[in-house]
Amino acid sequence: MKLVRYRYGGREAVGVLDAERAVVRAVDGAGGQAPELVDLIRDWSALPAGGPPTGAELPLDELTLLAPLPRPARNIFCVGKNYHDHSEEFAGSGFDSSDGKGAPAVPSLPIFFTKVAGSVIGPGDPIEPHTGVTAALDYEVELAVIIGTGGRGITEADSWNHIWGYTIVNDITARDLQRDHKQWFLGKSLDTFCPMGPWAVSADEVKATELTVETHVNGERRQHANTRDLIFGIPELIATLSAGITLEPGDIIATGTPAGVGLGFDPPRFLGSGDEVSVSISGLGTLSNPVGPATG
Amino acid sequence: MKLVRYRYGGREAVGVLDAERAVVRAVDGAGGQAPELVDLIRDWSALPAGGPPTGAELPLDELTLLAPLPRPARNIFCVGKNYHDHSEEFAGSGFDSSDGKGAPAVPSLPIFFTKVAGSVIGPGDPIEPHTGVTAALDYEVELAVIIGTGGRGITEADSWNHIWGYTIVNDITARDLQRDHKQWFLGKSLDTFCPMGPWAVSADEVKATELTVETHVNGERRQHANTRDLIFGIPELIATLSAGITLEPGDIIATGTPAGVGLGFDPPRFLGSGDEVSVSISGLGTLSNPVGPATG
Repeated sequence: MKLVRYRYGGREAVGVLDAERAVVRAVDGAGGQAPELVDLIRDWSALPAGGPPTGAELPLDELTLLAPLPRPARNIFCVGKNYHDHSEEFAGSGFDSSDGKGAPAVPSLPIFFTKVAGSVIGPGDPIEPHTGVTAALDYEVELAVIIGTGGRGITEADSWNHIWGYTIVNDITARDLQRDHKQWFLGKSLDTFCPMGPWAVSADEVKATELTVETHVNGERRQHANTRDLIFGIPELIATLSAGITLEPGDIIATGTPAGVGLGFDPPRFLGSGDEVSVSISGLGTLSNPVGPATG
Repeated sequence: MKLVRYRYGGREAVGVLDAERAVVRAVDGAGGQAPELVDLIRDWSALPAGGPPTGAELPLDELTLLAPLPRPARNIFCVGKNYHDHSEEFAGSGFDSSDGKGAPAVPSLPIFFTKVAGSVIGPGDPIEPHTGVTAALDYEVELAVIIGTGGRGITEADSWNHIWGYTIVNDITARDLQRDHKQWFLGKSLDTFCPMGPWAVSADEVKATELTVETHVNGERRQHANTRDLIFGIPELIATLSAGITLEPGDIIATGTPAGVGLGFDPPRFLGSGDEVSVSISGLGTLSNPVGPATG
């Protein structure tokens, strides 16, 4: 099932998307209140087999799509250097301050950092260039896991049972801040640095270990890989995080990006105002955002 | 003004502490609902000059104190290596994977990372040893800034106007995870790794640039320093963060720890079950937590 958050007629709501027919049916909330997607996710197992009760059909092209989880209850969990080719590209770029010179490019354990809750934007929203703060704005397509059932000490074998589904995150990064401030959090967390969407897809529709991930900038393909090439797979990421951290419904884990980011070019090809960045994952859709000043 | 969160007679509430007389007056919320401290902070400037309306006095020693901000709306912002002596102690310990060998021990720009929202515990709550996950449990006393008025592009000169007040955070750290996973987030974020309290103090009561910070483990003094020795002062931290991130009321910035942590000893003196860790800051009180299994 594909769930969208959208604005229509001045009202925000969650709906079930029929992608083939390009229609959305609004999810009815208790007492006429539109539910948030995170509330549906938390109570997913209690829903009827066919999914939540819905109302009349709306044409997809008349809706404004919004980020499916616009304000996570805590920062977005992120994974660094989780594809071999990107690990080597990053290690050779001069922008990786996370390890000493001569250290292996490919990490021996997963590297976790966060993007601040508050940096999420939706499809079509502008990515602010933050001129004067960064001169090295970069993109990173990532498969994002949405936790459904929380818990601690989740085993790799059981990890799939804790996943509600998936969405796409564009892990926008200020490479100069990422390098100069040593820990990556600041360079990953500027306002608008977490485009998310275009919708959320329940786990039953997706084989997460065999998805094509791609980025296009102004129509030119820059990243192209498959999630089968993740260094640390989703079960290992969930088991490692949850060994000591109780995961919660609605937690988001962005699983890392493959080669082809702007810093990997010589000279680097960073983003600037007027660029259009589209990140796609097979089965999850395409998330496009322009780069430009905030439009309020 | 000192604000406490507490449990009394099975009910949780916020109160105003009179420390000299050791009494607390419960803050009256709208419609009889006990407010959360973060709500008071958000609307602080609208309160009467004498502070929020309060009820009858309760004896402090009959209350169970709770963390003042038990569930921040996003991860706790933290600063690494922000005292000279600790930067050198950490650089020489073998546990710092944040920079290459031979790099200067003292950073040239502030290092930001986060602790997960969800790791906060209150005074007296046990710090879980996480045996099997870490063998290098360590303490870090830190002055924590509580943002009152949010904003972006806050100048250093204006930064003090954005601070509601202060509390103490014990930035508990699994040194082995901090080292082995490269980015510090995981080793800083295990459940119970953010003791906070014993209360929150409004900015007018505190000269934040001249506070004594101390840690005692089982009564033995381990850390002892003064906030005047911060490498990056509070104005610079707020200006750097808010250059690209919109700060929000209730955001917490833990400003870093001085020398004397467990990893600085040879051999290291890490924490274990049965230890009692007390962190103190002049004017802000003392926050004590035992190390031991969760008590539910």
